[in-house]
Amino acid sequence: MASDLTTMGQAAQTAETQLAQLSTTQRNAGLTAMAQALVDHQDVILAANQADLTSATDLKESFVDRLTLTADRIEAMAEGMRQVAQLPDPIGSVDKMWKNEAGLMIGKQRVPLGVIGIIFEARPNVTADAAALCFKSGNAVMLRGGKEAIQTNIAVSDVLRQALTDNGVDANAIQLVHDTSHETASEMMALTGYLDVLIPRGGRGLIQRVVQQAKVPVIETGAGNCHIYVDEFAELQMAIDITVNAKVQRPSVCNAAEKLVIHSAVAADYLPAIAAALRDQGVQLRGDDRACAIVPDMVAATDADWDEEYNDLIMAVKVVDSEAEAIAHINAHNTKHSEAIITDNYQNGQRFLQQIDAACVYINASTRFTDGFEFGFGAEIGISTQKLHARGPMGLNELTSTKYIIYGDGQVRK
Amino acid sequence: MASDLTTMGQAAQTAETQLAQLSTTQRNAGLTAMAQALVDHQDVILAANQADLTSATDLKESFVDRLTLTADRIEAMAEGMRQVAQLPDPIGSVDKMWKNEAGLMIGKQRVPLGVIGIIFEARPNVTADAAALCFKSGNAVMLRGGKEAIQTNIAVSDVLRQALTDNGVDANAIQLVHDTSHETASEMMALTGYLDVLIPRGGRGLIQRVVQQAKVPVIETGAGNCHIYVDEFAELQMAIDITVNAKVQRPSVCNAAEKLVIHSAVAADYLPAIAAALRDQGVQLRGDDRACAIVPDMVAATDADWDEEYNDLIMAVKVVDSEAEAIAHINAHNTKHSEAIITDNYQNGQRFLQQIDAACVYINASTRFTDGFEFGFGAEIGISTQKLHARGPMGLNELTSTKYIIYGDGQVRK
Repeated sequence: MASDLTTMGQAAQTAETQLAQLSTTQRNAGLTAMAQALVDHQDVILAANQADLTSATDLKESFVDRLTLTADRIEAMAEGMRQVAQLPDPIGSVDKMWKNEAGLMIGKQRVPLGVIGIIFEARPNVTADAAALCFKSGNAVMLRGGKEAIQTNIAVSDVLRQALTDNGVDANAIQLVHDTSHETASEMMALTGYLDVLIPRGGRGLIQRVVQQAKVPVIETGAGNCHIYVDEFAELQMAIDITVNAKVQRPSVCNAAEKLVIHSAVAADYLPAIAAALRDQGVQLRGDDRACAIVPDMVAATDADWDEEYNDLIMAVKVVDSEAEAIAHINAHNTKHSEAIITDNYQNGQRFLQQIDAACVYINASTRFTDGFEFGFGAEIGISTQKLHARGPMGLNELTSTKYIIYGDGQVRK
Repeated sequence: MASDLTTMGQAAQTAETQLAQLSTTQRNAGLTAMAQALVDHQDVILAANQADLTSATDLKESFVDRLTLTADRIEAMAEGMRQVAQLPDPIGSVDKMWKNEAGLMIGKQRVPLGVIGIIFEARPNVTADAAALCFKSGNAVMLRGGKEAIQTNIAVSDVLRQALTDNGVDANAIQLVHDTSHETASEMMALTGYLDVLIPRGGRGLIQRVVQQAKVPVIETGAGNCHIYVDEFAELQMAIDITVNAKVQRPSVCNAAEKLVIHSAVAADYLPAIAAALRDQGVQLRGDDRACAIVPDMVAATDADWDEEYNDLIMAVKVVDSEAEAIAHINAHNTKHSEAIITDNYQNGQRFLQQIDAACVYINASTRFTDGFEFGFGAEIGISTQKLHARGPMGLNELTSTKYIIYGDGQVRK
């Protein structure tokens, strides 16, 4: 298989050479054509998806739901591609330009990263989403999706590639790895010299495997053990509204809150009301000793709870005696994703913002806002939880690198 | 040893928590104190260096020269630290801030990367340089230098750490790995959860070993197979001046030119003069068939020459029939570091800038300018040849990450 991946890597680099030189108009035309092709060929895609679903008998309902395509979902994929076409083009802009001591004009220009690898689970919509964002930002992409969606992914990628060919664009700008074995995934993670970056999209197991195995640079995404800290100066109603929203509005995603940390000065007053509101929404609560003493029918939390990402209607509650204790607890257990303080106290809010180590730190707002669309980026490829290259929601800009372009008139170094 | 590194990693994280909260004034005071301590304790450092030199009997002269400290070199290290203290503080500034649809104020603030690992060869000055840049940018650092310099490195780091302690700063902001075995280096490369990034500084062998082995994110630095392309519209004198400067001004460094690519339309005219000027400076020339036909006493270049970084007074010469051929050759063989075109033709210059894939692309200037000081950054930790996070000379800004700080007034996601 290594030779196949190497061949794909070479083809991606060749395509990238063309892609990086396409105008904004040409890239947008490609996106629009791919969107139309998805709609035009939905019968082929739906048939392939049906074949995948037929094989997927032993899987969880939520898994099958994510795997399933319908005409509406294909239209949503197409609409996503059209929206990416509408976004500003990040490529070519010069962030800054200056003249140095020697008189050189030095400009920092945005360029594509090059060839991006995406390893993802059985969610066929990722094929179109990731392809659109990579294509718009001038990057060739090698996609490797979960084996349960392989027939759907082949159908989708064939449709997208044909649309590129029809538009005079090298179809190898978008390639799907057809072999879904673990061995091939491991080889892809080691494809140095071809892949400029690898972005895993999926659960913690997948991401950890990629981080442990990859030899190409990786952007870690998605793990979210997010906290709401209800300070002693919080307003009760705001604490209820934000905690409930952060926990239940979409519990399966990474920016949903998993933990509630509450100051002891207000715990006896506030916790019963917050707990009742959460339970009204079907949330199971797990508490430390002091939380259980206030709301006795909570399950006792174990040490493991503080590090767990439930992605479910479960929330663990911890009572602290100071903001400093809250910050120390959160920094010790969080996944550096999104954290929020609810407070009316200026100093406490500022201190939380400065001392919490996370991609996104909120005062008086739900962690659910950590999202490329909500941030105004128009779309996102994922949410980076590492500090290198990109942190937080990653839009088109985060799929670029830079290059210094330098205009001289004969300068030599003294 | 793993437990030692883990202990060091924990201590680095604890120190980082304090360091990230220090004011600019406090960090600058630490740098000034460390600089003074180097000068005050130069006897101890020189004695340790003498012990290293006594053990270093079988080594190359250039290696011994880099390993050797003198009172002047220690003063230069101290002066470097004082200069870093003078540089603008990158930490805390908010690059941009905007209000989103929901009314959240979202700011992108510069924060330290966290804990930086530096693996370097037997150059004791790197200990002080890297420590200064990491400290200024609010990062804790774990340094692992070459075994030949271990006694010097211990003396330097002890002096720096004592100066921090005397200034009320946690000395573990700067830690040296005393065990210089390969096993410990490998364990350091796998220290995920403690190191936010690893930066290797040294020769290609070291860098490749780090890239292959590391599980923590790496920034690749330094490999430079740089080209000068003399276009058919080049001025002869400028071609001579820039080629000679780029090759001979400091041949051992990564931004020195290793290859000359010349257009066939001017090769017969220009190459004898350029070759003569290079030979006057002691450069050995290796040519392809056409270059050798013009300057017959060149050595014949082999295929391996096009990919080799000599770091020496050697230059290989290739004749091409078009700019496109030059660009394709350079993109196929370069290390994505620095490339230059010499031309008076507007279109050819612009095309070269856009189509060459490298950190720094020059029109009519020497590749030797790729340097943090020359770019106006004041200092550099290295020159990144990868596309992720940082590309080209890395100053203080490249040692930072960002964090979104978000001010709300009760927003929940709809």
